[in-house]
Amino acid sequence: MPEKIKEVTVYAPATVANVVCGFDILGFALSEPNDKMVVRVSDKKGVTIINKDKYNLPTDPAKNVAGVALLALLDALNGEVAGFEIESTKVIKPGSGIGSSAASAAAVVVAANQLLDNRFTNEELVAFAMCGEEVASGAKHADNIAPCIYGGVTLIRNNDPLDIIPIPAPPMYVTVLHPQIEIKTSEARGILKKKVAMKDAITQWANVAGLIAGLMKGDYALIGRSLTDVIVEPMRSMLIPRFKEVKQESMKAGALGGGISGSGPSVFMLSKDEVTAHKVEAAIKGVYDKVGIDYHIYVTTISDKGVRVV
Amino acid sequence: MPEKIKEVTVYAPATVANVVCGFDILGFALSEPNDKMVVRVSDKKGVTIINKDKYNLPTDPAKNVAGVALLALLDALNGEVAGFEIESTKVIKPGSGIGSSAASAAAVVVAANQLLDNRFTNEELVAFAMCGEEVASGAKHADNIAPCIYGGVTLIRNNDPLDIIPIPAPPMYVTVLHPQIEIKTSEARGILKKKVAMKDAITQWANVAGLIAGLMKGDYALIGRSLTDVIVEPMRSMLIPRFKEVKQESMKAGALGGGISGSGPSVFMLSKDEVTAHKVEAAIKGVYDKVGIDYHIYVTTISDKGVRVV
Repeated sequence: MPEKIKEVTVYAPATVANVVCGFDILGFALSEPNDKMVVRVSDKKGVTIINKDKYNLPTDPAKNVAGVALLALLDALNGEVAGFEIESTKVIKPGSGIGSSAASAAAVVVAANQLLDNRFTNEELVAFAMCGEEVASGAKHADNIAPCIYGGVTLIRNNDPLDIIPIPAPPMYVTVLHPQIEIKTSEARGILKKKVAMKDAITQWANVAGLIAGLMKGDYALIGRSLTDVIVEPMRSMLIPRFKEVKQESMKAGALGGGISGSGPSVFMLSKDEVTAHKVEAAIKGVYDKVGIDYHIYVTTISDKGVRVV
Repeated sequence: MPEKIKEVTVYAPATVANVVCGFDILGFALSEPNDKMVVRVSDKKGVTIINKDKYNLPTDPAKNVAGVALLALLDALNGEVAGFEIESTKVIKPGSGIGSSAASAAAVVVAANQLLDNRFTNEELVAFAMCGEEVASGAKHADNIAPCIYGGVTLIRNNDPLDIIPIPAPPMYVTVLHPQIEIKTSEARGILKKKVAMKDAITQWANVAGLIAGLMKGDYALIGRSLTDVIVEPMRSMLIPRFKEVKQESMKAGALGGGISGSGPSVFMLSKDEVTAHKVEAAIKGVYDKVGIDYHIYVTTISDKGVRVV
């Protein structure tokens, strides 16, 4: 009989939530970047965190996204395991809007589940990880965690009880712009209106319906026509310098559409193929080189894989 | 060479619009009932209407839904055809909320197109028929006309320009209750709020997304979970006596879900199989037999066919 595994290394992908019209319900996994996390069964009670990166995240597990997620899982084990040790190498920059905290939380619960012979379902893992997300953003939401764990495009139809629906999608390239500015979640939230016009709500759900149909049919033109947000983007885009110009130039370069990733500041644009995605990258550079804000830009793909165990 | 056809008979199905969460965007065709329309090329200018039923609909084409739709098509022919004669046998009761006017308008434009060697696309036919729908309801909307012409479940992603997306769906049975009361369209409209809470709008588009995914995956359970309307039904259902009880008893009998058809007064409930649909019928009878309002109830299916040419 092989000895029981005591250590697992995982890679957790960055994710895009609030996919244009799919505010609060749709997300997808990116192929790059990924956080690396090593999780070990430990004789020491609770969760011990060792940071191997430059971000100085809290090592108190109760204040650390990964720590809280793993404490939630540990709690469900009723003392079967004393504790876990996390060795965290963050690559996804915290606060960039591409699911950095979700990656931390998702990584450690998937790793721990592997150490426990995969006794928890993906939905249960999402629920544990959501406890971690709550520390980061003050709200239990799954729109980054679900695609981080499931991979691909996911729909959160309902939060309580949790209802995660994987949405089949055709291959797509993603150009991600990360302007090096900080957007406070509270600010991004505060800018949202509490009420919306009925006619705008109808337009939004028509586009959400079109987007789901377009993804499932593999109909790029329909995906493109449906990538319209009449409710959130008009408000939140003012927090991102030159957003309108970035979008316009991306569309001219052939992007299917795109918008704010999560609550920003990152912006994503979807393309049908790699050549177009690089044209979109060049078009965005053309805009942002003149802005005077440091930025990072890269091309990746929607990944059909979630957290990978190695 | 065969002589050119001068007369075409078509059957146009009843349709359900405003499918629960899919208010203003989703519709589907029913297998029964169907209107019968005969359309003939005529030497007489314009459109002549002969009614063969008991409904006494206007014979002035400018005031008749089918008349206006056919006048719009005639207009696009630039004098190539002098006129058409319509022999109309309505079976779908006007004002019942299952697309009676849409059936009239759709029937005649499909029939005329057949006489013209199908030169118009389905989208063009919808546009002509929408002119007729405008006479009936004061608004150019396609949510009954599109499924009536295309068959199956259709999404109207956008009205202008028109963007109709056929949504593949698994077989489903439909129990239709038609309480013999009149709901004025103006009243059904007036009851709608102009603004909705953002959180309700998000719940609605999450369910719309779930419904489209459920239909396209053939996932009955997901369809059922997604058939929830937090915006329109809470307001409009008060116009239909005992709506809440009808729905509750239908769900207990095994219905996947359902709601108001169009702007009422008909109510529809979806079931996975025929046996359940008849149990739902019995459950609704159990409620409505005590109400003291005449009603008509029947079981049919979602039809994958639109207007049929015979």
